[in-house]
Amino acid sequence: MAIARLTPDEAASLMHEIPGWEMARDSAAIRRNFRFADFSAAWAFMSRVALLAEVQDHHPDWSNVYNRVMIELTTHDCKGLSERDFRLATAIDALV
Amino acid sequence: MAIARLTPDEAASLMHEIPGWEMARDSAAIRRNFRFADFSAAWAFMSRVALLAEVQDHHPDWSNVYNRVMIELTTHDCKGLSERDFRLATAIDALV
Repeated sequence: MAIARLTPDEAASLMHEIPGWEMARDSAAIRRNFRFADFSAAWAFMSRVALLAEVQDHHPDWSNVYNRVMIELTTHDCKGLSERDFRLATAIDALV
Repeated sequence: MAIARLTPDEAASLMHEIPGWEMARDSAAIRRNFRFADFSAAWAFMSRVALLAEVQDHHPDWSNVYNRVMIELTTHDCKGLSERDFRLATAIDALV
């Protein structure tokens, strides 16, 4: 089943619900940067995000440098943003 | 204690011992790309690398997209490559 790509208006509206996130990749993704006390704390957070990703069957494009984690969410199947990205972002925000 | 930056000759010599890796960032880092069956397998690998990083007190700059993991190793304290990078690279290679 194809995943519906959100219209720009739909995406803009949903952005209001996740104020820590910004648009990225010409509005094809959303991004948030996180900073922790050290690598151990960053890794603990990433481990929880990994579990969310598996549960939601939607996985982040992300990077880590010591205590910093950058997460980008996009829906490869629709080459842009879908409600899956906002659902995962909301779940990630609930962790921090 | 300052960490010694390897000379280009020293780094080039050590590269022969880790053939899966390539130079990156104008020879200030080494990089290897890994591919796994799925996110779960990639995450299992990353978890083992995270433990190595803590044990060696040397942490990767890395990113993950579903089943792919890109690892860059550099030594921020000396703004280039040190023996720490090659020690961690060797330990990572032993996992795969």
